[in-house]
Amino acid sequence: MSRQRHGGDRYRHTIRYDFSVNTNPLGMPDYVKRVLREKIHTGAELWEWYPDPSCDRLRQALASWHGVSREQIICGNGASELICAVARMLAQEKAARRVTCLLPVPSFSEYERAMLAVGAEIRYHTESAATGFALTETILDRLTDDVDVVFLCSPNNPVGNLLSECLLGRILERCRQNGITVVLDTCFGELAVAGDPAAKQPPDPNPNLIVLKAFTKLYAIPGLRLGYCIADGGTVRRLQAQLPCWNVSGIAQLAGLTILDGGRNVDYIGQTRECIARERHFLLTGLEETGLTVLPGAANFLCFFAGAPLYEKLLERGILIRDCSDYRGMGQGWYRVAVRTRRENEILLEEIKEVIG
Amino acid sequence: MSRQRHGGDRYRHTIRYDFSVNTNPLGMPDYVKRVLREKIHTGAELWEWYPDPSCDRLRQALASWHGVSREQIICGNGASELICAVARMLAQEKAARRVTCLLPVPSFSEYERAMLAVGAEIRYHTESAATGFALTETILDRLTDDVDVVFLCSPNNPVGNLLSECLLGRILERCRQNGITVVLDTCFGELAVAGDPAAKQPPDPNPNLIVLKAFTKLYAIPGLRLGYCIADGGTVRRLQAQLPCWNVSGIAQLAGLTILDGGRNVDYIGQTRECIARERHFLLTGLEETGLTVLPGAANFLCFFAGAPLYEKLLERGILIRDCSDYRGMGQGWYRVAVRTRRENEILLEEIKEVIG
Repeated sequence: MSRQRHGGDRYRHTIRYDFSVNTNPLGMPDYVKRVLREKIHTGAELWEWYPDPSCDRLRQALASWHGVSREQIICGNGASELICAVARMLAQEKAARRVTCLLPVPSFSEYERAMLAVGAEIRYHTESAATGFALTETILDRLTDDVDVVFLCSPNNPVGNLLSECLLGRILERCRQNGITVVLDTCFGELAVAGDPAAKQPPDPNPNLIVLKAFTKLYAIPGLRLGYCIADGGTVRRLQAQLPCWNVSGIAQLAGLTILDGGRNVDYIGQTRECIARERHFLLTGLEETGLTVLPGAANFLCFFAGAPLYEKLLERGILIRDCSDYRGMGQGWYRVAVRTRRENEILLEEIKEVIG
Repeated sequence: MSRQRHGGDRYRHTIRYDFSVNTNPLGMPDYVKRVLREKIHTGAELWEWYPDPSCDRLRQALASWHGVSREQIICGNGASELICAVARMLAQEKAARRVTCLLPVPSFSEYERAMLAVGAEIRYHTESAATGFALTETILDRLTDDVDVVFLCSPNNPVGNLLSECLLGRILERCRQNGITVVLDTCFGELAVAGDPAAKQPPDPNPNLIVLKAFTKLYAIPGLRLGYCIADGGTVRRLQAQLPCWNVSGIAQLAGLTILDGGRNVDYIGQTRECIARERHFLLTGLEETGLTVLPGAANFLCFFAGAPLYEKLLERGILIRDCSDYRGMGQGWYRVAVRTRRENEILLEEIKEVIG
């Protein structure tokens, strides 16, 4: 079976340790596990009822959490569904011609797939390995008035670097002038050690800005599928028209509501950040000690270059990492690993040493 | 809060009995409940792992069940997601012009919403109340070569009537000649008392035919979101490009696999049909005795006309039924109720008698 274009493929591999997905190493919060287990044990409404198609309670909780109004929130079956919805909304509105999309690369491949699915013209803005694939001011000249949409990711996947507040401000300004929709994917924002300026970006009053977020990474629930966008009310309504009815399952809505319940997630986020900061340092130091070139960054994952092939050899040992060679703009030799718990990180380092050694 | 455009809205109403959704009155099979509860209690993979993006095991199980190949199956986050994917696939492929869609009405409103979301031109083929809204041969003349797609639903929602094998054959033949894609929604097929010819329709070798099915109704799991299409391999690949990655959650895939596990669903389908046949007769007789005009049909729900307003008055008594006045082509006075268990059906009949009384 061929390699998947994403991490986390535990269905075609036998894996002891998965470093290919970048979810919170602490796992889903215990208080959420308890509620889900209880609810599934005692009642049938999570499966026998249709989910609320408008996700009203969950959107209200998210609105309170982010300090915006409920009309500025839209929930999706994972952030990936919302990326596709944005692409379709734009394609639908520019019906008379092809949508033009600017994609800084390397970055998350689903942006490209979603835009190709609507027949968009894609312009790539390739950042250089020499500068650690970080977005620079050179992007500003590419934000011309014939571009319809640009996808930004901060911390950027798979690179791990943050977009600076200053550069983000200049990009947003240029996009406002030229009528370009900005999709700002901050799905890893709360997991960044330095605090992510993009994660704090207020969604208002810029109607061109769509901020993409997810429960997947921070709360370690990729299997449940729950993402959301913060945007202005008009954009939310246009996106809603592009989504199927009942797109967020009952259990995903319950998980989201339970997580946010009265701000109970605050402690968990604090613990998570502490863990990531400590373990990121440990793993980074360990990788560098083995002679690998690790990119600077601030995410809960590390991107590095290795002269020797690592993917297959680690897989033979039951360890899955992300081979980044299929990321546009990267090439052979780049890998991404998640920051996990101390025990897991130690095992990864030992195995890498043995493979390289 | 305004009335929803679908049944099952338990989130903005206080409901004792829900007759507005047409799921299996027996509920999710017990052997599936057991597995889900066990899995959620003992492991974390249902939430902490990404779901298999290609749903390989589930598609294989569905392929064996239907006697087709895995390449002919595509799974979705409910049938509603697949309806949208079909609309987008067609819009994308006819990029140079608007898609033209023929919609026999009254029928399920999501077809119209999905086609409007891609900017399609919609032609309505309105069947008459005088003939019980049943599709007749008059549709054949509407299947001209400037039509791209037609949506058929059998048993038709909300009417409940089956498409005859003969008429279906003629429609398929005409569509093949004129290059029209046929979406045949048989989501209620296995619940029909008379046996649904459309449900048996082999998907091959007709590349114009997309058969839509779901676990939602037959296995009473609307909250989990699991639908699928049977189509030819080329169509499946084109539909896949229109779906987000990881679109079917881990728990939905597990539920589907568990349901089908070695044909364990056969007994359950038998029990379901027996229950529906018995209870349908009971409810139909009861409704007619109160003087209501009930449409003939064979579905697990009944559509009837009432001179007096029923929706609000039953809602005040904690009973939710489907007011069909917002179905295109129906009008005021039409209602739809699900066939439920004997106890529930008795309560519905009593309450209707009191309201009409």
